[in-house]
Amino acid sequence: MDMIELNPSPFYKMESLSGILGVELWVKRDDLIPEFMGGNKVRKNRRILASHSFGESDSTLLVTNGGADSNHARVIAMMGAQLGCSVHLVLHGEPSLSPPTCGNAFFYRATGADVTYVEADAIRSTIDTVVERAKSEGKRVLVVPGGGHSPEGAEAYAQAVAELPFAPDWLVHASGTGGTQAGLLMGVARLGWTTKVQGVSVARTESRGREAIAALLGGEVPLEFIALTADYRFGGYGQFDSDLMAFIEDIVKLEGLPLDPVYTGKAMYGLARMVNEGRIPKGARVVFWHTGGLMNLMTSGEK
Amino acid sequence: MDMIELNPSPFYKMESLSGILGVELWVKRDDLIPEFMGGNKVRKNRRILASHSFGESDSTLLVTNGGADSNHARVIAMMGAQLGCSVHLVLHGEPSLSPPTCGNAFFYRATGADVTYVEADAIRSTIDTVVERAKSEGKRVLVVPGGGHSPEGAEAYAQAVAELPFAPDWLVHASGTGGTQAGLLMGVARLGWTTKVQGVSVARTESRGREAIAALLGGEVPLEFIALTADYRFGGYGQFDSDLMAFIEDIVKLEGLPLDPVYTGKAMYGLARMVNEGRIPKGARVVFWHTGGLMNLMTSGEK
Repeated sequence: MDMIELNPSPFYKMESLSGILGVELWVKRDDLIPEFMGGNKVRKNRRILASHSFGESDSTLLVTNGGADSNHARVIAMMGAQLGCSVHLVLHGEPSLSPPTCGNAFFYRATGADVTYVEADAIRSTIDTVVERAKSEGKRVLVVPGGGHSPEGAEAYAQAVAELPFAPDWLVHASGTGGTQAGLLMGVARLGWTTKVQGVSVARTESRGREAIAALLGGEVPLEFIALTADYRFGGYGQFDSDLMAFIEDIVKLEGLPLDPVYTGKAMYGLARMVNEGRIPKGARVVFWHTGGLMNLMTSGEK
Repeated sequence: MDMIELNPSPFYKMESLSGILGVELWVKRDDLIPEFMGGNKVRKNRRILASHSFGESDSTLLVTNGGADSNHARVIAMMGAQLGCSVHLVLHGEPSLSPPTCGNAFFYRATGADVTYVEADAIRSTIDTVVERAKSEGKRVLVVPGGGHSPEGAEAYAQAVAELPFAPDWLVHASGTGGTQAGLLMGVARLGWTTKVQGVSVARTESRGREAIAALLGGEVPLEFIALTADYRFGGYGQFDSDLMAFIEDIVKLEGLPLDPVYTGKAMYGLARMVNEGRIPKGARVVFWHTGGLMNLMTSGEK
C-alpha cells in the first residue's frame, strides 16, 4: 500500500493519575494514529494489506467481518477505498440505530462499501458466498481475518513496542481477540525487556483468551508469560454498567483522556483496580497502551 | 496551566487530491492535537487560560458560551476539570437530541460542567447572572470569550504558523468568528512570508467576517491582506446539503481524511472549487489547515 509513513503515536506521562494511583503511569495513544480514524486496527491492517500484492487493484475485492459497529471494518473500508479496491463487510448484529453520520457506520457508507448484516452463525457461509460470487465474476479476492486477527496483525504490534522510549515494568491494554497482546509479548521479548504484558480481557474467559494468544505466538514466547485477567469484563463483549461509565467520566475529568466502554474503559478500569489491590505494585512504571475504539464511545449510548 | 508540551500537529501531503486538483496539497491536522479531543479551540484556549493566573483554582469559575454542540465549550469543560475549576457553559439552541455519549455533550456531562441552554438573545444576560451569583459566593470568575475569540486566541495561531516546514503559496481554512484567520495572517506576516491566507466563511457574510478579523489584527497586517470568501456557506452556520455530504464522502474515499459539514467540509469544498475555477492557480503549493470539529461529524446526522 502506498500510505504515508507512520510516525510514532503520542506518548506521555499522565501526571494526575500517577499521583492518585501511586504508580508512574504513561499512555501510548494509538487512538491518535493520524490515518483511517486511528486505533490498533490501523497498525494491524496496514501490515496485513502490505503483505498482499495487489495486481489490478480495481479488480480486487476485500472481504472481512466484524460487529455492527466494528472499528476493524471501518479501517478496511477506508483502506480499500484508497487502494481502489471494492469492499464487502459481513457484519453481525443489528444495523446501527445511529444516523449514518455517527460512528463507524458513517465510514462504511462514505467509502461505498457493501455491507451485509447477518446472525453470528451465518458469518462463515455469507463470506463464502460473497467470495464465490466475486471469483465467478473474475475478481481477485482477499479475505481479511475479522479484527485483523492474524500473524501479520500481531507482527505489527511486535514492531510497535520499539516506539516506546524505555522498558516499562508493566504494559497494560485491552485484550480482545488476542492479536495485540501476542504482538506486544513478542516485541517485548525481542527487545530483551522484562516488561510484564498484562491484557485485560474485554470479552473472553481467561482460558479461551489465552489459547487465542498462544496460537499467534508461534513458540516465540513461553506461554507462562501470557498474563490475561478476565476480572473486568463487565459481563462480556459490549456489556458495561453505570460504574464503568462513571469511571470513564472520572478519567476524562482527571486527564482529558477519552476511553470507551467496550475496550479501553475496561482496560483502564482493570489497571486501576490491579494497582489498588496490590496486583500491580506501587511505584511501578506502567504504560497504558490506548488501542483506540473512540468510535465506540460515540455510539455506545444507543445500546 | 500545567499541560503537556504540544508537539506540532501532523502535517503531510495528500497525494491523491493533489493529483486530481492539479495543486500540491498539504494538510495540517489540528484535529489530531492529542489533548481535549483536539481542534483549533485547544490551541486558543490553552493560550487564553495560560495568560490568566489562577490562585486557589478550586475557587475559580470558568464561564463561557457557544452553540449546543460547541467544540469550544467542550474544550473549556475539559480544561476546567483538569485545573480543578468549576465550569458553567451557557449554550444557545436546543439541548442535543443525541444520547449523552455522542459528541461534545458527552464531555460536558463527563466533566461535571453546569450547562444552561438559552435563546441566543439571552446569552449575555445569562452570563451576567451566573457571574454575579458566583462573585456573591466569593468565587473568582474568568469569562472566556465564545469560541475563544480574543487576541490571545489569535496569538495562538500566529505562533502555530511556525510549525509549517515551508512557506506555502496558499493557506486555506474554515473561518468562523475570525480568530484563527487573524492569527494565521499575523503569523505569516511575522515570518515575512508572501503566503495568501484564504478563509472560507462557514457562516458570516464577507463584510461582517472581515470586520471581525480586522478587529483582532491590531494594525499588524494591512487590511487588504484579508481574503475571505462567503461563496461556500451553504446557507449559513450549521446549514449543509446533500452535495456537501457527498463531497465529504469523496474525501473520505480519496484520502481517508475526516471532514465535518459545519466547518472543515465547507473549507475543503471551497478550496476545491477555487482551484477548479482558477481562483487558486494550478501548480500552487497549498496547505489546508484542518481546524477540527470532528465531534460535529458525529452528531450532524441528527439535524
